[in-house]
Amino acid sequence: MAQSSYHYDVIVIGAGHAGTEAAAAAARLGANTALLTTNLDTVGQMSCNPAIGGVAKGQIVREVDALGGLMGQAIDATGIQFRLLNCRKGPAMHSPRAQADKKAYQFHIKHQIEQQPNLDLRQETVMDLMTEEVDGVTRVCGVSVVGDAVFLAPTVILTTGTFLKAIMHTGKAQTEGGRAGEGTTTGISGALNRLGFQVERFKTGTPARLNAKSIDYSSLELQPGDDTPQPFSFLTEFLNASDQLPCHIAHTNDAVHELIRANLDRAPMYSGQINSTGPRYCPSIEDKVVRFADKNSHQLFLEPEGRNTNEVYVNGISTSLPRDVQDQMFRMIQGLENAQIMRYGYAVEYDFCPPTQLWPHMESKLVNGLFLAGQINGTTGYEEAAGQGLIAGMNAARKVVGKEPWVPTRDQAYIGVLVDDLVTAGTDEPYRMFTSRAEYRLLLRQDNADRRLTGAADELGLIDATRRTRFQAKLAQIELAQHLLKEARCEKIPGDVYLRRSEVDWAQMCERVEGLGQIEPQAAQQVLYDIKYEGYINRQKSEVEKQHRLASKRIPATFDYDRIGPLRHEAREKLNRVRPLNLDQAKRISGVTPADLALVLTHLEGKKKPIE
Amino acid sequence: MAQSSYHYDVIVIGAGHAGTEAAAAAARLGANTALLTTNLDTVGQMSCNPAIGGVAKGQIVREVDALGGLMGQAIDATGIQFRLLNCRKGPAMHSPRAQADKKAYQFHIKHQIEQQPNLDLRQETVMDLMTEEVDGVTRVCGVSVVGDAVFLAPTVILTTGTFLKAIMHTGKAQTEGGRAGEGTTTGISGALNRLGFQVERFKTGTPARLNAKSIDYSSLELQPGDDTPQPFSFLTEFLNASDQLPCHIAHTNDAVHELIRANLDRAPMYSGQINSTGPRYCPSIEDKVVRFADKNSHQLFLEPEGRNTNEVYVNGISTSLPRDVQDQMFRMIQGLENAQIMRYGYAVEYDFCPPTQLWPHMESKLVNGLFLAGQINGTTGYEEAAGQGLIAGMNAARKVVGKEPWVPTRDQAYIGVLVDDLVTAGTDEPYRMFTSRAEYRLLLRQDNADRRLTGAADELGLIDATRRTRFQAKLAQIELAQHLLKEARCEKIPGDVYLRRSEVDWAQMCERVEGLGQIEPQAAQQVLYDIKYEGYINRQKSEVEKQHRLASKRIPATFDYDRIGPLRHEAREKLNRVRPLNLDQAKRISGVTPADLALVLTHLEGKKKPIE
Repeated sequence: MAQSSYHYDVIVIGAGHAGTEAAAAAARLGANTALLTTNLDTVGQMSCNPAIGGVAKGQIVREVDALGGLMGQAIDATGIQFRLLNCRKGPAMHSPRAQADKKAYQFHIKHQIEQQPNLDLRQETVMDLMTEEVDGVTRVCGVSVVGDAVFLAPTVILTTGTFLKAIMHTGKAQTEGGRAGEGTTTGISGALNRLGFQVERFKTGTPARLNAKSIDYSSLELQPGDDTPQPFSFLTEFLNASDQLPCHIAHTNDAVHELIRANLDRAPMYSGQINSTGPRYCPSIEDKVVRFADKNSHQLFLEPEGRNTNEVYVNGISTSLPRDVQDQMFRMIQGLENAQIMRYGYAVEYDFCPPTQLWPHMESKLVNGLFLAGQINGTTGYEEAAGQGLIAGMNAARKVVGKEPWVPTRDQAYIGVLVDDLVTAGTDEPYRMFTSRAEYRLLLRQDNADRRLTGAADELGLIDATRRTRFQAKLAQIELAQHLLKEARCEKIPGDVYLRRSEVDWAQMCERVEGLGQIEPQAAQQVLYDIKYEGYINRQKSEVEKQHRLASKRIPATFDYDRIGPLRHEAREKLNRVRPLNLDQAKRISGVTPADLALVLTHLEGKKKPIE
Repeated sequence: MAQSSYHYDVIVIGAGHAGTEAAAAAARLGANTALLTTNLDTVGQMSCNPAIGGVAKGQIVREVDALGGLMGQAIDATGIQFRLLNCRKGPAMHSPRAQADKKAYQFHIKHQIEQQPNLDLRQETVMDLMTEEVDGVTRVCGVSVVGDAVFLAPTVILTTGTFLKAIMHTGKAQTEGGRAGEGTTTGISGALNRLGFQVERFKTGTPARLNAKSIDYSSLELQPGDDTPQPFSFLTEFLNASDQLPCHIAHTNDAVHELIRANLDRAPMYSGQINSTGPRYCPSIEDKVVRFADKNSHQLFLEPEGRNTNEVYVNGISTSLPRDVQDQMFRMIQGLENAQIMRYGYAVEYDFCPPTQLWPHMESKLVNGLFLAGQINGTTGYEEAAGQGLIAGMNAARKVVGKEPWVPTRDQAYIGVLVDDLVTAGTDEPYRMFTSRAEYRLLLRQDNADRRLTGAADELGLIDATRRTRFQAKLAQIELAQHLLKEARCEKIPGDVYLRRSEVDWAQMCERVEGLGQIEPQAAQQVLYDIKYEGYINRQKSEVEKQHRLASKRIPATFDYDRIGPLRHEAREKLNRVRPLNLDQAKRISGVTPADLALVLTHLEGKKKPIE
């Protein structure tokens, strides 16, 4: 028996982007929460690029913020450059992205966690998961840690990132560890195997970091931040444009590509040393050279890692090529001829658990009370991790007090798309979010994340009074603007109808409608988009209604597909694995046909008795 | 053969307080320098207390600064509380100490290193030392690192701190690693053994860190910073008093001591699990309870670890007792009843090389070009490490260009005392500096470190124009004040004579002597001390002269003590081991008598031929 035991409602293992959001969300809901990490100095660390957001990812950050999460305020407080991507496209494509002061970001997150009531942040090395059998059900009951102690709780959230049985590769050199200079975790992998989890391997990679003093910036293209930087958080009032630092753009060339091709046999990805799949949309430079053989140049973005460091992240040249090749590559690139490598790029292979083993609220089907979130579920990206963490943390806290899970739907949030994609379809490569994954992306805009989620978050108990007051004030502004427009007459027609005209913009309306100019810009933007895109939005909303009707046909978690005699073997197997919670989710399982669905529906509605 | 090789003049292994000063000093002298560390995120990390300076240590920081080092400016830039200790005692005892924002300090140091010309900071894991035999002499020629590469240089400086074969203890639990959450280094220990170095074990320890939100500060005594905080660096003009954060004082009690006594059999220091010697003057709480059994209370200083963290360092309660005892201890202490432990205290055992194996300039006697500095030499403390690092780095760079070593003498600097103590007497417990170790401590004041060292540093090439200009301006002010005093007449006697009177202070002189009030305060202080303490100072100076006469009797490094027939066995053995560079150093070797010295002198002066 361990000498020391500590009792909590929720235990979170790992304090990266998933773990911190999970712990904070659970604690906000009142659960007595422990966040355990092997090293307190790496809480919230940005292992790869020093940036938050991007296409579809920025939308997730806005959603995390709308739900009361940490990420948005953290990047607003520590960002060094803000850009709204795709701002020449329609508003559904607008995606905020920011460069972070990497260390400031990390310690900002840590400090938020330290101050959070109901939350204990503790440096502990977890050795094993503890489970018990209750009425034939395997339930998690805690974890054991180094130092003769156990942490006991009815719910445990695993957010171990790339640290499970992690191996790093640079050329032939292999080192154990989930991040350069750090170790790996084996106990938890062992526990997952023992408990019957399917565990597979993915790989990811990171580029070299250069010393700014060795870069010839004069020969590189400048990429400044926006003139009017937009915050991520709905609570941030203002960002100072002049505080921003620029990025720079360099280019690979034929000579670099030739060098890489000549050394492909020494690239772990091609020599057979690494077999695991890496992120398709964040390929290594050797991948790019092979897959896009006709391109003779790739852009590289030189991103400063902070205000008070010379380290520069080279976005676009992630690699596990041996160091001598990395040395040579940079020497061939204009502006980087004398670049000094501070850290070499490397690939890392790690264990993940295919996420079809989870319910949509991130609890595992196999072990009651055990939640998994973030990279352990086969995803990539800080934002995807944060979104899952928030869902897992919130639902662990709800479980503790006997409440039903809550998960946003696909028409409500990218986070809804994310968890549904993961648990319904799984993933055979590191999963990242794209706008194309969302069928209702006109609804899931970055600008309206609060309107989509903050009301629900309030009901769930996830937000504080400041956010509530602020949100209600915005809603009131929106209503006021809508009222003013409806009552106004422009060329004898109501203002809201007049505004639909493509040649009419908000500024013109403000001249015509008294009081409209006083409407706060964020509220004005909502009213404008609602009116300008009304047709498209209504079309998507009617599709959503259909989907909701299908989703209302709920399937019990214990539904026995084997009872449906005529069901095709493939459908039976996949339905049994995914165990969809409703017909809408079932419809999205690849390999399940409309005919299969009809059979399931029939049995659900009891029109036919099961065929024995 | 390794795929990649990199050529440098000086390679420094380890980027703690010794390594960063070593690398910066070598680079300032123009040596092409590489600083290698396994993790760039831990450069300059404060492994234990978040503070710089203290009695005698503060003086070392002032000396490091006077020699152009990093530590003084770093703590001035990132300090959160400044106090001049012993300020009611005489000026020789005045010792500056500051609480640091631990992470800000670390990243400040890292940034200075990154920006330093001639210096490459690189994340590399050293596997082995490379040596070659030249004319029967073993010379270092580089290091091999993970990733099929070698770094080649004629000088290598080892500053590996507590990381050599490190084992951490908390109760019975043992983990490999030099710092919680980090790993250990074995390759270098192996190399040292192979090369014939004597390697021994020391231990040190660290207390728990608590979360500020769980401390009841209202029941603790406040310890604020000074009203007029004094900078460490001679270059810092001003520190803002109102920016400071307070510390707090708590107390152990009988119940705590009783608990510890009841669990002594579970304390690794007493159970036999740890045999290595720890720092006498920084004992663990279990040591204090045993060694000072009559004391029923010890002070604990609660030191905030930074402006943006809740972590609080509990100075005075370092321990390797098991976690359940640590949990209970705090519950019994007023103000800490509900304290939440974020990190547990632990002890760490590590390899060090007894420093009598070094020349005073920190180069090893065994391997030409191999320097050792910091905790690897059996010292404790960031300041002692920094001082040694600076000496090692400077002398490695001098060696590369064929210059003679330079080391401050015992009357010139605490750093001189430090290196002389280490190489002459060695140490059988972790060595820390005290004012009592300096026989000329009236000369070695914190206030005059620049007058003692900056001139030499300038000749050595260690300082830049800013520091030179500033220092010369101060000297000019001192000369001006001396001139004004000498020329003035007060009650018919010269001003400098009048000022000797105990009842006369500087303010009174300023009223009597025109222009004296315009003298800059730091210069005024020098003139005042010179005059007020003239008698004491002159007495110490005449002792210094005697010592210098003895020191001028130089002993060749290759001097053969075996040739002196009548020399006692003990003296012969110790002289052979230490190989003192002059008679003064020889005199300080314990076990070498005046008669032994007379024999050595006789042989040195060739009065007698060696007895075969």
